[in-house]
Amino acid sequence: MELDLGADPVDLTAAIVDIRSESGEEKPLADAVEHALRTQAPHLEVVRDGNAVLARTSLGRSSRVVFAGHLDTVPMNDNLPLRRTGSGTTEVLHGLGAVDMKGGDAVFLSLAATVTEPRHDVTFVFYDCEEVEASRNGLGRIERNLPDWLRGDLAVVGEPSNAVIEAGCQGTLRVELRCDGKRAHTARAWMGVNAIHALGEPLRRLAEYQPRVVDIDGLTYREGLQAVRVGGGVAGNVVPDEATLAVNYRFAPDRSPDEALVHVREVFGGYELSVADLSGGALPGLSEPATAELVRASGGDPVAKLGWTDVARFAALGMPAVNFGPGDPTLAHTKEEHVAAAEIGRVAEVLRAFLS
Amino acid sequence: MELDLGADPVDLTAAIVDIRSESGEEKPLADAVEHALRTQAPHLEVVRDGNAVLARTSLGRSSRVVFAGHLDTVPMNDNLPLRRTGSGTTEVLHGLGAVDMKGGDAVFLSLAATVTEPRHDVTFVFYDCEEVEASRNGLGRIERNLPDWLRGDLAVVGEPSNAVIEAGCQGTLRVELRCDGKRAHTARAWMGVNAIHALGEPLRRLAEYQPRVVDIDGLTYREGLQAVRVGGGVAGNVVPDEATLAVNYRFAPDRSPDEALVHVREVFGGYELSVADLSGGALPGLSEPATAELVRASGGDPVAKLGWTDVARFAALGMPAVNFGPGDPTLAHTKEEHVAAAEIGRVAEVLRAFLS
Repeated sequence: MELDLGADPVDLTAAIVDIRSESGEEKPLADAVEHALRTQAPHLEVVRDGNAVLARTSLGRSSRVVFAGHLDTVPMNDNLPLRRTGSGTTEVLHGLGAVDMKGGDAVFLSLAATVTEPRHDVTFVFYDCEEVEASRNGLGRIERNLPDWLRGDLAVVGEPSNAVIEAGCQGTLRVELRCDGKRAHTARAWMGVNAIHALGEPLRRLAEYQPRVVDIDGLTYREGLQAVRVGGGVAGNVVPDEATLAVNYRFAPDRSPDEALVHVREVFGGYELSVADLSGGALPGLSEPATAELVRASGGDPVAKLGWTDVARFAALGMPAVNFGPGDPTLAHTKEEHVAAAEIGRVAEVLRAFLS
Repeated sequence: MELDLGADPVDLTAAIVDIRSESGEEKPLADAVEHALRTQAPHLEVVRDGNAVLARTSLGRSSRVVFAGHLDTVPMNDNLPLRRTGSGTTEVLHGLGAVDMKGGDAVFLSLAATVTEPRHDVTFVFYDCEEVEASRNGLGRIERNLPDWLRGDLAVVGEPSNAVIEAGCQGTLRVELRCDGKRAHTARAWMGVNAIHALGEPLRRLAEYQPRVVDIDGLTYREGLQAVRVGGGVAGNVVPDEATLAVNYRFAPDRSPDEALVHVREVFGGYELSVADLSGGALPGLSEPATAELVRASGGDPVAKLGWTDVARFAALGMPAVNFGPGDPTLAHTKEEHVAAAEIGRVAEVLRAFLS
C-alpha cells in the first residue's frame, strides 16, 4: 500500500491504522513507511533497522529534535478495519492503534515530508515492539546499532496525551515477595507453617501504605504501590510451604531506580524480594530551552505523565523528553480505542509551528 | 507390570509404589490390581468400575467386613522411584504413596489372595481419586453404581495409622473466599480498588484463629483452619479486580457439616464464601461389636483419627468403620514419605488373625 505523506494527517492516520502491525508483525507497515519516506521526502537521510525506519535532516542547525513513534499495536480485539464517524470538527477515527499511537505516527510522517526547512534539525524514529517486554523494544536495538541517531536536544514521543504536553514520566519497579512455610497435611496443621497466612502482614503493609504525591517543576506526580499478582497453594488438603506476591511500584522521577528499590525494600523489611523489572522515570526538564519552547508553542500548561513511556529512554541518554500526541491514553489497549480527528490536527499544527 | 499377590506384603508395597498413580491417573495401577486379582484370587468375584477394582467372597458367613484402600497419591514431589533402606526388622520403604496408602493396599491385596476361607465374608475395594475433591472420589461413584458392594458389618480403611486402630474421623470443609475490586492501570492506581490488598484482613483472621481441641469417647480431636490456595492478578501493570482464597476447615466429629459451615461463615463474616467441598466426620463408635473385636485383635488402645478419611463415608452408610494401616500419617503428602517394613508386617498379621 502506498502512503500519501502529503495528505491530511487524519487521512494518513486512517491509512496506517488499516495496515495491521501487532508487535513483531510490523514489517508491512515499516515497508510502507520506508518506501513513502524514500520517495516523498528526498531531503531526508533514511535508514532501516529491522522493523524500524529512521530519517533525519543534516542542515547544520544549532539544535536537533528527535520525534519518536512506535509502529506496533497490542493484539487486535475485534477493532479493525478502521471506522470513521461524524465529520468535520466532530469526526472520530475508531480502530486498533488509532490512539496508541498511529495518530502520532501520522503527524510525524506528515511533518517529515512537508517541513523541508525546519528550524531545528530533526530526526524521525519509527520503531517496533514497544508494546511487549522491554528487552524486545526497537529503541533499545537502535541504541545499540545506531546510537547517534537517537541524540538530540529534545525528544518528542508521540504517545497519546490528549494533545497536551506531558513532561517526564514515572519509573516502574516490579518485585516479587516470597513467603516460605512448611508443608503439612491440613488435618495436622500444627506440624506445618502456612506460607499463605504469612502474606497477611505484607498485604497489611500494602493496604496501609500512603503513596507519595510529589511536585516537580510545578507538576504533580502521584505514586502507587500495588499488588499485581498473588499465588500459592499445593492442594486442597495441604498446608502450603510457599506463597508469592508481585508488587508494582510506580515512582515519581525525583527517585532514581536504586532509591525506588531501597524504598520498597524498606516497606517490605524482613521479607525476601526479587526484582522482576525496573525502569527509571524521567524528570520533566521544563527548564531546558527546547522544552520550554515547545511548551510555549503548544500554548498550554504541561501536565505530569503518570505511566512509564519511552520518554524515560531518552531521559536516560541525558535529553529532555516529552510526550505529545493525539488521543486519550486511558483508551489505549481497549477495544473502544478511538481518536478525535481534531486532536490529530491540533498536534500537527503545534509541531508545525514549533518547527517552522 | 505383573503383581505377585503371594509375595511378602513389604515387597508387594514396593512393587505398587513404583506404579505411579496420581489422582486421575490410576489406570495402570488399577489394571495391574485387576489382572492380579482375576488370575491369582480365583475364589473372589471381581468387578471393575472406572479406575476402581472390587473383589468379594460370598461364603454365606454371618458377617461381612469391607476393606477399602485408595489407589491414588498426591502429586509427585521428587520422591519416586521407591528406595529401600535398612534390612530385616529395620527396613524402611521411601517413596510417594509408601505411607498414603500403598502399604495398606498391599496388605489388603495379600489377604485377598491368600486368606481363601475367611471367618467373615470379605469385600475388597481398591478405588481412585481419594486425594482430590470429594465429588471425584471413587467411593462416591461406587456408591451410585454398585451400592451393595459397600455394605457390611464393619469397614476397615487402610489409611496410615501407625498400625494402631484409629476410630472415627474429623470432617472437612473447603470454602472459597472472594474479594472484588476495580481494575485500573497501576500508574493511576487511585482509579481502581485492589482486590489482592483486600485479602489482608481474612488472612489476618486466619493467622489469629485458635482451633478447638475436642474430647470424644476419651479420644482427642484437634481442629484446624488453613488457607490452601490463593490467587489473583491480571498483568504486571494492572490493579487486579479479583482475588480468591481457598480455606480448609478440619472439624471434630461432634460438629455436623452444617454447624461447621456456620462456624466458618462466622469467622469470615462480611466476605463472600462459596463451598467447594464438605464432608462430615465420623464419631468413633467404639461400642459396636465388630469394632470391639478388631480392637481386641490389634491388642492396643485405639486413638482418634485427625484427618478426614473415607471412614466417614461408611459411617454415613450406618456401618462402624475404623482406620487401620501401616505408616505414620504425619508423613503423608510430604516429600519424605516412608514406612517401616515392620508396620506393614504388623498390620498384615493383625488382620490375618482377625480373619482366620
